[in-house]
Amino acid sequence: MGIKEEFFNFKIGELKKGDRNLISDVEGVKVGHFTIHDGDIHTGVTAVLPHYGNIFKEKVMASSYVINGFGKSVGLIQVEELGNIETPIILTNTLSVGTALSGVVKYMLMKNDDIGIKTGTINSVVCECNDGYLNDIRGMHITEDHVFLAIEDAKEDFEEGAVGAGAGMTCFGFKGGIGSASRIIELDDKTYTIGAIVLSNFGSQNDFRLNGTKIIKDMISPVKEDKGSIIIIIATDIPLSERQLKRVCKRASVGLSRLGSFLGNGSGDIVIAFSSKNKINHYGERDILNINILNENKMDILFRAAAEVTEESVLSSMIHSESITGRCDHKIKSLKDFLLKKSS
Amino acid sequence: MGIKEEFFNFKIGELKKGDRNLISDVEGVKVGHFTIHDGDIHTGVTAVLPHYGNIFKEKVMASSYVINGFGKSVGLIQVEELGNIETPIILTNTLSVGTALSGVVKYMLMKNDDIGIKTGTINSVVCECNDGYLNDIRGMHITEDHVFLAIEDAKEDFEEGAVGAGAGMTCFGFKGGIGSASRIIELDDKTYTIGAIVLSNFGSQNDFRLNGTKIIKDMISPVKEDKGSIIIIIATDIPLSERQLKRVCKRASVGLSRLGSFLGNGSGDIVIAFSSKNKINHYGERDILNINILNENKMDILFRAAAEVTEESVLSSMIHSESITGRCDHKIKSLKDFLLKKSS
Amino acid sequence: MGIKEEFFNFKIGELKKGDRNLISDVEGVKVGHFTIHDGDIHTGVTAVLPHYGNIFKEKVMASSYVINGFGKSVGLIQVEELGNIETPIILTNTLSVGTALSGVVKYMLMKNDDIGIKTGTINSVVCECNDGYLNDIRGMHITEDHVFLAIEDAKEDFEEGAVGAGAGMTCFGFKGGIGSASRIIELDDKTYTIGAIVLSNFGSQNDFRLNGTKIIKDMISPVKEDKGSIIIIIATDIPLSERQLKRVCKRASVGLSRLGSFLGNGSGDIVIAFSSKNKINHYGERDILNINILNENKMDILFRAAAEVTEESVLSSMIHSESITGRCDHKIKSLKDFLLKKSS
Amino acid sequence: MGIKEEFFNFKIGELKKGDRNLISDVEGVKVGHFTIHDGDIHTGVTAVLPHYGNIFKEKVMASSYVINGFGKSVGLIQVEELGNIETPIILTNTLSVGTALSGVVKYMLMKNDDIGIKTGTINSVVCECNDGYLNDIRGMHITEDHVFLAIEDAKEDFEEGAVGAGAGMTCFGFKGGIGSASRIIELDDKTYTIGAIVLSNFGSQNDFRLNGTKIIKDMISPVKEDKGSIIIIIATDIPLSERQLKRVCKRASVGLSRLGSFLGNGSGDIVIAFSSKNKINHYGERDILNINILNENKMDILFRAAAEVTEESVLSSMIHSESITGRCDHKIKSLKDFLLKKSS
Repeated sequence: MGIKEEFFNFKIGELKKGDRNLISDVEGVKVGHFTIHDGDIHTGVTAVLPHYGNIFKEKVMASSYVINGFGKSVGLIQVEELGNIETPIILTNTLSVGTALSGVVKYMLMKNDDIGIKTGTINSVVCECNDGYLNDIRGMHITEDHVFLAIEDAKEDFEEGAVGAGAGMTCFGFKGGIGSASRIIELDDKTYTIGAIVLSNFGSQNDFRLNGTKIIKDMISPVKEDKGSIIIIIATDIPLSERQLKRVCKRASVGLSRLGSFLGNGSGDIVIAFSSKNKINHYGERDILNINILNENKMDILFRAAAEVTEESVLSSMIHSESITGRCDHKIKSLKDFLLKKSS
Repeated sequence: MGIKEEFFNFKIGELKKGDRNLISDVEGVKVGHFTIHDGDIHTGVTAVLPHYGNIFKEKVMASSYVINGFGKSVGLIQVEELGNIETPIILTNTLSVGTALSGVVKYMLMKNDDIGIKTGTINSVVCECNDGYLNDIRGMHITEDHVFLAIEDAKEDFEEGAVGAGAGMTCFGFKGGIGSASRIIELDDKTYTIGAIVLSNFGSQNDFRLNGTKIIKDMISPVKEDKGSIIIIIATDIPLSERQLKRVCKRASVGLSRLGSFLGNGSGDIVIAFSSKNKINHYGERDILNINILNENKMDILFRAAAEVTEESVLSSMIHSESITGRCDHKIKSLKDFLLKKSS
Repeated sequence: MGIKEEFFNFKIGELKKGDRNLISDVEGVKVGHFTIHDGDIHTGVTAVLPHYGNIFKEKVMASSYVINGFGKSVGLIQVEELGNIETPIILTNTLSVGTALSGVVKYMLMKNDDIGIKTGTINSVVCECNDGYLNDIRGMHITEDHVFLAIEDAKEDFEEGAVGAGAGMTCFGFKGGIGSASRIIELDDKTYTIGAIVLSNFGSQNDFRLNGTKIIKDMISPVKEDKGSIIIIIATDIPLSERQLKRVCKRASVGLSRLGSFLGNGSGDIVIAFSSKNKINHYGERDILNINILNENKMDILFRAAAEVTEESVLSSMIHSESITGRCDHKIKSLKDFLLKKSS
Repeated sequence: MGIKEEFFNFKIGELKKGDRNLISDVEGVKVGHFTIHDGDIHTGVTAVLPHYGNIFKEKVMASSYVINGFGKSVGLIQVEELGNIETPIILTNTLSVGTALSGVVKYMLMKNDDIGIKTGTINSVVCECNDGYLNDIRGMHITEDHVFLAIEDAKEDFEEGAVGAGAGMTCFGFKGGIGSASRIIELDDKTYTIGAIVLSNFGSQNDFRLNGTKIIKDMISPVKEDKGSIIIIIATDIPLSERQLKRVCKRASVGLSRLGSFLGNGSGDIVIAFSSKNKINHYGERDILNINILNENKMDILFRAAAEVTEESVLSSMIHSESITGRCDHKIKSLKDFLLKKSS
C-alpha cells in the first residue's frame, strides 16, 4: 500500500490509475531533482524530460495555458507560436529563473553544437514558484550546475514532496512541493496514459478541501493569503494537436478549484501540456508532414483525466512532504502530520 | 425564508449575500423574460439591462471570457476590442440567435435614430444555450417581437427557474434555466455589490456535487453526456477596468468546477462581466477621460465572490425549476423534486 | 488581358498567380452573390463555400484572427475552440447579420435533418461591413431568402466589384466591394494554391498607396475617416493545422498596411483561413485521426502569399467597381474612373 | 541637420516629430547601453527606463503584443495579467537572456530590500534578438554586471546604431541595431508625445522598401532569409488603459509591413507599450484608484503615430550603423554606405 492509499481513503475521480501513478507512466517521460535543505536554504531544481532522445532535434508538440499570470515563467511565447517544446522543462524558485535559464541553455549548447552556428537558437522553458517564506530566496542559491545535476538525475521512479524545486514550497498553508499522478484511457481498443506533475505553492488554508470537504476549522498556518503559485505539467502519449493540448491544459483549473482554490490574484498558475507521440524533427526535409490527432468527440475523457491528475498531484505533493522549519525559524506543518494528529 | 434557504441547509461560500440575492442588487441592473411553454415548445428570451438609461449613449465597461468556445454567442469580438457593452444582453436558444440579434438591433434603432446615419452601427450581445432536448428548437419559434417583450419586461424582482431563455434548459440532468445570486463587498469603508445571472444547461448528472458532495448514486437523467452550455453574466458597481473585469470573468469557472463540471467538450461556457460604475459616453467630447479602477491588491475578494455567485446562481436555477415534460415526451426531473423525494 | 492587368502595370509581389487569379483556384471553393442596387438600397449577400460536399458532415479545418475587433462577425468563438468551419461563410451588411444568420441556419437545417435532433446544433460564420454611406442600412433590406439565393448562386467564375455584400461598400474613399486573387506554391514537387476573397470597406483616401506609392494629392472622397471594415477569407489546399492557419491569417494585415492602412480604430478587420485538404468527418468513428500538416520551416512562402493575395484582392475589389450614386445622393468614385481620368 | 535628415529626403508619415526625435522625448524615459565590439564579440545590453523614480514602487501601466512569437522574451505573462511594468526593460542577445534576467533581478534586489521579504518577488522584462551571424553568441559574453552598467548609463541623449544590444544585429541584410523616433500629438489643447525604440534584426534584403519603394535590385547581403527578430518599445505620456496600450502595440506591425517585411516565420517580433502618466503605487492604500484614459474616438492618431515611429526607428537604426566585419569574418554593409555609394 503506497502512501497515497494510506492517507486517502477515497479515490480522486473515477478513472483508472497508471502503474506508478506518476507522470512517468507516460512512456519516455523522466523527472530529475537537485535539492538543497541547508539552514535557511530550502530550494532546488526539478527537470521534466519529455522523452529519452535529443529533445532539440526531436521536439514534442506542446501547448500552454496561463490560468493566472502573476508569474515569471520563461519560454511560453514560442510554445504558443510554434506549438512545440525543445528542451527539458525546468522548475525552480522565482528569483533563480535567470540562472536556471542560463543553465539549461548551456546544457543544450553542450549537447548540440549546431545551435547558434548552423541553425537558430533555442527556446528553453523554465517555470517557477516563490519559496521565499521557507527559503532565503534573495540569496539566489541556485547555480547553473544545479540544472545540469537535475537533468542528469532524471528517472522514472522519481521522488515526490519537498524535493527539487519543491524543497521550500507551501501549499494551502501546509508543506507543498512536487507531486504527481496518472490515469489510463482506452482509445480505439488501445491503452494510453495521461499524467501530471505539479510544483505546488498556492492556496489559503481555510479554503482547503479534501475530496470536496473542508477539513480546516481553525487555520493553523502562519501564511494567511493565497500568494503562491502552481506549475502544472501534463504529459500524454495520446496524439493531440496543439489546439487540443491547450484545451486539456485549461481543465487543470478544475482540479485546483476542487481543492478549494479560487485562483488567487497573487498566484502564478501556469499549465503546460505535451504529447510525446507527436514529435517534430528539427531538420525534417519533407514539406508535408503526417501526424495523428484525436477525434474531438473523445476529448471529454481527457478533460476528466486532466482534472483528476491535477487534483491528485497537488494532494500527493502535500502528503509526501514532512513538517519543516525554514528561513527565520518559519515553521510549516505537513498535511500528513496534520491528518495523523487529527486521527490519533 | 426563501426557497434557496429552504432547500440548502448550507451556505455557498462565506461572503454576505445582497438583499434580494439577485444580480439586480447591483444598482440599475434589471432582468426581463419572455417565456413559451406550449406543447413541444419550451423556450424564450431573457434580457439583462446594465442600467436604467440609454445603454448605447452611455455604455458600460465590460469584458468577457470564453471558458469553452463550443458556443454561438454574438458580439464578444467588439467587447474584447473596445471594452464596453452598448445594448441589453439577450439570452435565447442556439438556433434563435439570428432572430434575437435582429430583434435587439431593431429595438436599438427604434430608440436611437442616429445609429447608421449620424454615427456608426451597433454591437449587440446575444448568448445562447441549446434547449433542443425539451424544446422543438428546429422550429425556431422565437420572433423579433419576443425580444422587445423581454426587454420591456425588465425589472428588479425578476423570476428564476424555467423562465425566459431558461424555459427548456437542462442542468446536471435536472431541470435548469435562469438563476441568480449576489454578494456584498466592503471597500474603502463603502458597500459594493457583485451579482450574477446564469442560463444553466450543462453538466452530467453523475458528476453533480451539492456543496462539494456527490448526491447522485444512480443516474436517473435521460441526458447522459455534458453537451449543454452555460452563460454567466456578472455585474458589479465596483469600478473595474476591462482587464480587471476579464480577471473576474475567469473565476466563474471555479464555481462550475465546484458543482462537479469538468468544463465538457460540447459545452459553450461563456462569461460576461460589466461594471455599472464605469460608463462611457458615446458622444463624449473630452479627449482625456477620468475613471476609477480597483487597487489590484483587492482583487481576491472579488474572485471569491465571482466563484460564489456563479455556484449559487446555478443551484438557484435548478431549485426554482419544476419537473417538466417537453418535446417528444422527454421528461426532466427538477432538483427540488429529487431532494424532496429523497428526504421524504 | 484581364482588367487587373489593364489597370496595374505592376505586379503585386513576386509569386505566380493562379489560373483565374481568384480564390476559386483552390479546388472546391465556390462563391455566390445576391445583389440589390435599387434606389437608396445598395447591399447584398456573398456566400463562400469551402468545398462541393456537405460542409456540416465534412468540416474544413479553419482558424481566424481579429486584426481589429470593431466588428460584429458571428461564429468565430467556436472556430477558435474547435478549429473548423461547418457552414458556408456568409458576408453581408452590419445590421443584417441577424437575418443572414437565421438564413444560413435554416439552409443548414434544410440540408441536414439530424441537426438539433440526432446531433447538436450548428455554428454558422457570418461576417459584415457597414455599407451605410451608400445603402439604407437602417432599412434592413436583406431577407433570409437572399442567403439561400447567394448560396445557390455559388460558382467558380464569380463576379468581383460592387456585387453581393460588396454592393454598397467604400474603400479608401473609392468604391469598394468584393475582390479576389490567388497564388501558386510548390511543395514536395507538387503544386498548391492559396487564394483570398475580401469584402473591402476600409481606409482613408489620403493614405492610399498603389503598390507602395501615394497617388492622392487632394482628397476627393466625401468619406474622410477610416470607419469601415474589411473581411478577408483565405483558402488553401495546403494541409495546415489550425495553429498554422492562424499564423497565415495574421499576415493579411501586411497586405492592408502596404495599401496605406494603419488599421483604424473604427474598422472591423477580420481574417478567416481554412484548408480544404484537412476535412473533419462529423460522424467519424475512429478515435485517432490521421492528418497532414506543413513543415513549419516552409511557412514563409505562405506568409508572403497571404500578404500578396490580400493586397491584390483589395485592389481588385476597387478596380472592378464603377462610380456610384447611393443613399441621399451620396456619390463615390471608382478607382478605375479616377485612374482613367488621371491618365487621360 | 541630423543624420536622419541627411539620408532621407522624405518624411516618414505626416505627424510632427519630437525635439530629439527619440523615445526620450517622452518625459522621464531614459536609455542606457553597454557595448562590446571585440574580435568575434559584437553584442551588448540596452536598458530602457520608464521614469526617473523607483520603478518597482511606482509601476507604469503597460501592455505587450506578440506579432510573431519565435522569440524568447521574458516577463510578458505578468505584463498581460497585471497590466504594468516594474523594472527597467532590458534588451540583449538571445542566449544571454538568462544572465540579463539575473542581472536585472539583482539590481532590483539591491535597490529594494523589501522584495522577497516584506513583499512578493519581482517581474523583470528582458527581450532579445539573435546576433549570432556577427557575434560569438555561443560564447555567452554578457555578464550580470553589464546589465548594471547599461542601467546606470541611462540618459536622454542616448546613442543609436550598433550600440548596446544592437552591436551585432542585422536588418534587411544591412547593419541593424538600436533606433528611435518620436511624434507630437495634441489632445484637449495640450501637447503629448509618443516615442519608440527598436532593436532591429529582421527582414530579407530583397524585400526592403525605403518609404514604400524597393531600392535593392541584386541582393548583396550574405544573410538571405528573414530569420531575425525585432523588439519594439513604445512610450507615451498620453494616459492609456492597458487595453488601449495593447491596441497601440498592434499598430507597430504596420511600420514593419511598410518596410517590406511579411512578418517572417523565424522572426520574434515583440512590442511593448507603456504610459508614463499612469503609475501604480506598489504600496497604495486606497482600494479605489483614480486614473485617466483616452477617449477611444481619439485612438486613430495614436495608431498612425505608432506606425510612423516604428518605421522611422528601424530606418534610424540602419542609418546610424557603420559597415562591420564580425565573427568568422562575416561582413555586413551599412545602409548608409550602400546609399552613399549608390548616389556617388
